Amino acid sequence: MGGGRTRRMPRAERERQMLDAAVQIIARHGYAAASMDEIAELAGVSKPLVYLYLNSKDDLFTACIRREAAALTRAVRAAVRSALPADRRLWAGVLAFFTYTAEHPDGWTVLHLQARTHGPRFAAEADAVRAEMTAFVTRLIATAARESPHSRDLPARETEGLAVALIGAAESLADWTNTIPAATAVQAATTLMNFAWSGLGDLMSGEQWTEPVGA
Amino acid sequence: MGGGRTRRMPRAERERQMLDAAVQIIARHGYAAASMDEIAELAGVSKPLVYLYLNSKDDLFTACIRREAAALTRAVRAAVRSALPADRRLWAGVLAFFTYTAEHPDGWTVLHLQARTHGPRFAAEADAVRAEMTAFVTRLIATAARESPHSRDLPARETEGLAVALIGAAESLADWTNTIPAATAVQAATTLMNFAWSGLGDLMSGEQWTEPVGA
Repeated sequence: MGGGRTRRMPRAERERQMLDAAVQIIARHGYAAASMDEIAELAGVSKPLVYLYLNSKDDLFTACIRREAAALTRAVRAAVRSALPADRRLWAGVLAFFTYTAEHPDGWTVLHLQARTHGPRFAAEADAVRAEMTAFVTRLIATAARESPHSRDLPARETEGLAVALIGAAESLADWTNTIPAATAVQAATTLMNFAWSGLGDLMSGEQWTEPVGA
Repeated sequence: MGGGRTRRMPRAERERQMLDAAVQIIARHGYAAASMDEIAELAGVSKPLVYLYLNSKDDLFTACIRREAAALTRAVRAAVRSALPADRRLWAGVLAFFTYTAEHPDGWTVLHLQARTHGPRFAAEADAVRAEMTAFVTRLIATAARESPHSRDLPARETEGLAVALIGAAESLADWTNTIPAATAVQAATTLMNFAWSGLGDLMSGEQWTEPVGA
């Protein structure tokens, strides 16, 4: 990467290259097996420079998680910010999510898997993002329910549970879609809407699935 | 654990205690940080005995993943094996799933998170379980669609996508439910059915959510 003029590259750009390299290596080999030598080599810089910029392997990993989290939440929030009907708003957010995960498969792996399994420091970062997305989707569902023709107020815990289910379905479909070469973000988003919206839509019309007696 | 008579304990029982200890330590500290000393101590045996029985830390981890995977899939399959209507069959499977994850939170963490992020050997084990569960749920959805009053044949890829979404929603709700002290498996299963069934139900009645024009 970089050719002959790397020495005069601005710091932000150099740091971006280090994070790009770290995200790729961590996603593919796992955090424990990822080596700073390999990351430096892929970024086209010396290992001491990586330590100078990012301080430690742990700090580098934290910086990767924060960058990927910020980019993903920014993409989803930007798409949803509109005055569309509830299902269109959800569609826009879901499509932005799958577009992001399809375009950044390594970033998605770092955020969704690696961040959650290498100790409490990184898990706390991942939990914070998930809590933010859950709160965002919970508000979206609560607003949609109030705006529905039946103007329903869903119980808070139930609304949060629906948001958690929706986010899990989206995460699972993102992983799956990234394993299928020809799959598109639009297809994944359509499957999720088919799965989720009619369900949420029925709920907002006051139709609930009824638990069997004696279960 | 064990008191004074551990020496005469049958091998299977001793091995079960080692796996119980390993699952607990790996779930709470992560596989990389989990120490064989700690696992042996929690199991109430010597470290050489753990190596004698399970061979290596990697083999021990693999044995944990396989045991948890087998127990979870057995619980779900046993619950679903019946001639009930489709929604009741799904309810039974979903309830068995949440009952298992609530009763075995550490086993669930090992299977759902730890197995997926510590290199290809363990990820392959986790992928195999997920592929098996996906195939099982895909068949369940396909059968339900054919048995519906509208006798629909859903496209294979779409049916698999719905199964992937349903499994992701269930996994996410299982994680969330395990963080809420008073939450029950019945509540989690009801939320998932409210979220998923009406959506799947609408699909099986031939109602699809319509993608907005120009998206």
